[in-house]
Amino acid sequence: MKTRICVPAILLLTAFFSHSPAQLMKAPEIDKDRRVTLNVFAPGADSVKVINLSDEAAMGAKEYQMEMDSTGNWSVTTNPCRPGFHYYELNIDGFRCANPASQMYFGWGRWSSGLEVPDENLDFYSPKDVPRGEVRYHWYISKTIGALRKCLVYTPPGYDTDPSIRYPVLYLQHGAGESELGWSMQGKVNIILDNLIAEGKAKSMLIVMDNGYAARPGAENAHRPRGQDNAFTELVVNELVPMIDAEYRTQNTRENRAIAGLSMGAGQALRIGLSHSELFASVGAFSGGLWRFDINTSYNGIFKDADKFNDLYSLFWFGCGELDRGYGSLKKFHQTLEERGIKHVWYPGPGSHEWQVWRFHIFEFTQLLFK
Amino acid sequence: MKTRICVPAILLLTAFFSHSPAQLMKAPEIDKDRRVTLNVFAPGADSVKVINLSDEAAMGAKEYQMEMDSTGNWSVTTNPCRPGFHYYELNIDGFRCANPASQMYFGWGRWSSGLEVPDENLDFYSPKDVPRGEVRYHWYISKTIGALRKCLVYTPPGYDTDPSIRYPVLYLQHGAGESELGWSMQGKVNIILDNLIAEGKAKSMLIVMDNGYAARPGAENAHRPRGQDNAFTELVVNELVPMIDAEYRTQNTRENRAIAGLSMGAGQALRIGLSHSELFASVGAFSGGLWRFDINTSYNGIFKDADKFNDLYSLFWFGCGELDRGYGSLKKFHQTLEERGIKHVWYPGPGSHEWQVWRFHIFEFTQLLFK
Repeated sequence: MKTRICVPAILLLTAFFSHSPAQLMKAPEIDKDRRVTLNVFAPGADSVKVINLSDEAAMGAKEYQMEMDSTGNWSVTTNPCRPGFHYYELNIDGFRCANPASQMYFGWGRWSSGLEVPDENLDFYSPKDVPRGEVRYHWYISKTIGALRKCLVYTPPGYDTDPSIRYPVLYLQHGAGESELGWSMQGKVNIILDNLIAEGKAKSMLIVMDNGYAARPGAENAHRPRGQDNAFTELVVNELVPMIDAEYRTQNTRENRAIAGLSMGAGQALRIGLSHSELFASVGAFSGGLWRFDINTSYNGIFKDADKFNDLYSLFWFGCGELDRGYGSLKKFHQTLEERGIKHVWYPGPGSHEWQVWRFHIFEFTQLLFK
Repeated sequence: MKTRICVPAILLLTAFFSHSPAQLMKAPEIDKDRRVTLNVFAPGADSVKVINLSDEAAMGAKEYQMEMDSTGNWSVTTNPCRPGFHYYELNIDGFRCANPASQMYFGWGRWSSGLEVPDENLDFYSPKDVPRGEVRYHWYISKTIGALRKCLVYTPPGYDTDPSIRYPVLYLQHGAGESELGWSMQGKVNIILDNLIAEGKAKSMLIVMDNGYAARPGAENAHRPRGQDNAFTELVVNELVPMIDAEYRTQNTRENRAIAGLSMGAGQALRIGLSHSELFASVGAFSGGLWRFDINTSYNGIFKDADKFNDLYSLFWFGCGELDRGYGSLKKFHQTLEERGIKHVWYPGPGSHEWQVWRFHIFEFTQLLFK
């Protein structure tokens, strides 16, 4: 074929491959024991490390010094990693960056390298031969922030087939340093829901995933909004919910509307869901979000009257991995609610503060939702 | 607020900010003269360069040596850059990688840093207050490649409003080393079409963007398929077009179906579009794709009979930037077609082999399409 291609094509191919020589682009390899072999081409570096990669034995992150061969390629094979999704970084002579040979994900406040470590015992987040929903990128100009932004909307299989059917809606938030892409890219939420819906284990629903950071125009922290800012609550209540109800075929009642999130997003779900019972009848908090809790005063005292709370909320769900530093306070929260007779679902489980836990959480939570 | 947050929230925030210290995360700044100031925190490096960044004066890429201050921060201010989108890389002691402080885009066969350099004289790709289409991530299990993959589908404003309306479809391909994300992320095709449709300058249409790489299961090059592989043609003809016609409200005739692409994708558009006139009545080739051309034999001799070609194709469009190395051969192609009386649109213009040119191409091409 080479002799037939004309000059521009040859130049383009050359440019492409010169930008990605084989030694630079050797993707991470994961063996059957879940050890990861990484290769980095850095002939002029004095030290190359893999940092912040989670370790099977420890709950925390581990650091690995890499070794250079005579060609300038640094490599290491790690200890076994826990199954699931893990961010990690390289440290090249003190410079911290993503591995150019990895798939990248938005986390840690920037595009970061990530590894998907298979779990041969699980298939709930593996793609199966079932009808598929879509994830729609939905742009809108927000009055709250005065700029264009986008949310992602999972529409279940069949959404386009019968325009007479309306669906309940789950609003679902990512964690600190992540973005609206997290739940579909790292979390595989669309695959999980496709599988559950095919088996009849979850109701067909819309899932709306917006970015958890929002700042008003000219706000002091507009360049770095925090997840605790009121601007995000306003955006959800005044803009996002009305827009979704107007532009999608939703079941437009509080009983058919839920809000949930992980970590920072758990805090947002609790704050918004418990202060806007006119909008949301179900709330989910995954691995965090609990502020210093006082049953009589927190969340405007909504937990003070158990009967009233039990009437108001159809599903109040929270979970946490046992290795998560927040586990203790959530377990105590569960015990307090239990003593007071406040209906809720508490889902402890293995794992730490990581996506594999949140995949389990969305898998369990959505099976109870809107029923 | 800080005093109210509980232990897990504090730990999480600490973890987040320790992963992204301010000096590491200083985003590139572009001044009014389009000079870019870059900062990289690499205290242990001996040399840090910005490489492969396009330069206003030259058509090629330029390299900049950065200077380190006493804190370990390397910085440089570049020459003025041409307006538009530009990939670039860092070189840290010989290690080539993306800038962690940049937005990233899939190009050069991996996630790469990119810069959007504004052009104050242009607004056709700027978001305006107009009705917006969506970009849908549409997953499917392909029989051709034996795996799950996804295409992106732009649905125009109003697609969900009136289920009786059917739309023409443009199949649109990215360039070498890029992915199905290229046209929406780097190209802003959805913004461009939203604007054109709002002004009544382009017909409402669906735009399907699949990944241009496809290999049959077990193929020798399955780990690195080429854009020239027949597997991609098969996938488009046997799977993609029938799936889109089955799952979207398309106008299912050749007159209402087009194929176009840039660079490697231009080659695919010509190869597929000109050999499957039963499917496509319009073809667009942006900046490339032309094989050694013989008017009597190329593309199975389809250009031999001008009257037949003119009857068969409603729109045959190609364009190229004058600084592109492929410009000469495309201009000659235009002259040959002109001499033979073969109807076509030739769109020369400023610029080289870059996204700013392809934004113009899609802007011009879609205004002539399906009319």
